[in-house]
Amino acid sequence: MPSVDALTQGILNGNKTALGRAITLVESTNRKHLQKANLIVENCLVKKTESIRIGITGVPGVGKSTFIETLGIKLTSLGHKLAVLAVDPSSSQSKGSILGDKTRMQELVKDENAFIRPSPSGESLGGVARKTRETIILCEAAGYDIILIETVGVGQSETAVHSMVDFFLLLKLAGAGDELQGIKRGIIEMADALVINKADKDNLNQVKKAKTEFARALQLYPPKESGWTPKVLSCSALEDIGILETWNMIMEYIDLSKETGHFINNRKNQNKNWLLHHIEDHIKLDFFDNTQIKKLLPKTINEVTAGNISPFNAAEKLIGIYRDQN
Amino acid sequence: MPSVDALTQGILNGNKTALGRAITLVESTNRKHLQKANLIVENCLVKKTESIRIGITGVPGVGKSTFIETLGIKLTSLGHKLAVLAVDPSSSQSKGSILGDKTRMQELVKDENAFIRPSPSGESLGGVARKTRETIILCEAAGYDIILIETVGVGQSETAVHSMVDFFLLLKLAGAGDELQGIKRGIIEMADALVINKADKDNLNQVKKAKTEFARALQLYPPKESGWTPKVLSCSALEDIGILETWNMIMEYIDLSKETGHFINNRKNQNKNWLLHHIEDHIKLDFFDNTQIKKLLPKTINEVTAGNISPFNAAEKLIGIYRDQN
Repeated sequence: MPSVDALTQGILNGNKTALGRAITLVESTNRKHLQKANLIVENCLVKKTESIRIGITGVPGVGKSTFIETLGIKLTSLGHKLAVLAVDPSSSQSKGSILGDKTRMQELVKDENAFIRPSPSGESLGGVARKTRETIILCEAAGYDIILIETVGVGQSETAVHSMVDFFLLLKLAGAGDELQGIKRGIIEMADALVINKADKDNLNQVKKAKTEFARALQLYPPKESGWTPKVLSCSALEDIGILETWNMIMEYIDLSKETGHFINNRKNQNKNWLLHHIEDHIKLDFFDNTQIKKLLPKTINEVTAGNISPFNAAEKLIGIYRDQN
Repeated sequence: MPSVDALTQGILNGNKTALGRAITLVESTNRKHLQKANLIVENCLVKKTESIRIGITGVPGVGKSTFIETLGIKLTSLGHKLAVLAVDPSSSQSKGSILGDKTRMQELVKDENAFIRPSPSGESLGGVARKTRETIILCEAAGYDIILIETVGVGQSETAVHSMVDFFLLLKLAGAGDELQGIKRGIIEMADALVINKADKDNLNQVKKAKTEFARALQLYPPKESGWTPKVLSCSALEDIGILETWNMIMEYIDLSKETGHFINNRKNQNKNWLLHHIEDHIKLDFFDNTQIKKLLPKTINEVTAGNISPFNAAEKLIGIYRDQN
């Protein structure tokens, strides 16, 4: 493995191999690798970049890969450099990792201005989220000015992705019965845009109906801090219809949020929250990974659920035991 | 202040003064008081009680106090003993504490089988929630078999209340324009019943329309773990219409959930979650209340939001400093 300096230099020169290796260090569970990774991330932070981070979510089957491929090729042809990442901690269980099967983005994989990285596997959401955040910094330092982060829209990972992007896009299908089912409601609340995919010829009436329904549903949500009114669009990723319009809408948002100052404030808040969450995750992990606590916790939970000890006293006792060791 | 044993005995004898004093200890910030409080709570846990814990929420003006008074008088006349508590950390700021003005429940206050306790003031939500949980245990040991917990339906406290009750009821008004505004959407998702108050003569058409709309909205939510389908009812707390029906509906839920085992499983899970949350709150507080960390954190946040240091490295550095002191 090359040195920290060599990897940093490689990343700053836009070398994909160096970038890939540095991300492998970020994703490692080896403490020495992580120390190296921290140094590289720190070095990469020095390079100030202008990037746009976009989260894309939607249930399996909605056509996320095709959407990202069609949009991605358009973006690189416009002169952008594009990184595609994934946050999907569940993928390691189902073995059906999103982005794992790169053949689903055949064209984009071959595009020299695109960098595609599957979700780190075998990790908790907290771990994946942290690693994705650091990976974003590395990709930006390597010159990727648009970062797409994909997730599957069925779990907790959307909140994590929402906390690391400038724009959050929800892909939907029309005509699947009751339009609001299947995706967690909180996700709709986070979305800056709902894009109905597979708006093909046979489908146009259903799409029109769905657009009206979604637009009405979105009105029920409180106004966004950004001042932006979430948009409802339709597209056919397969036939490349509506993709440019979607991109223009995203750019409209970015321009507006830069004008109002929301863009920079949001990024600052995200950094602050990453700091606080990382501290909280770390001190919690220290506690719950402690050998003595690991041994006592299951027993204590049994005592508490049986009503033999109050949850508060039980907590104090465990904390006392933990403290006595340090 | 009487001894731990005297207060415990007083509570177990159903003495309101002893109960009130013990709650004051629970709510105290004095460490010695809290040690006493812990012992009393522990003693009270020994008494196995059959109780029903009900959360009631709704925005200010919806008529919560009148509803609780009318329902409460009905319950004590049925032979129940009723405790009314509040979770409202914001009240200390607005000075408009719910339940603070006991004159809003003139009849119930005089009822010897009712015990009314305002929200502890000047505390964070975490503090209030913890104290309310312990207060529930004390009230149950004192023989109160129905615990009503009130909150104002506009903030985070509903999640806290939801985590400590068997049944969660949302009070609403009809005809306030778009029916789903004004209350956070997550609260509707938590509700086991929506009850439309102020269903008076002039209002009946609007109430009927609102009931249909709410029922339709509730269908959009995923099924509840309890297997219960949330109900939409209407009432006039002022004219005592529909209050008994509401109570019967709650009892129907309780019977069903005891039959399926959900009632006891839910309580066990709540206890387990209290244990884990209390540990997390405690270790976080230890960290963020540390003198050195308190001094360094604002500077660190500035460095992080300015992009001079990565949130992850900054977190590691603070944790290192914290550890070196212990």
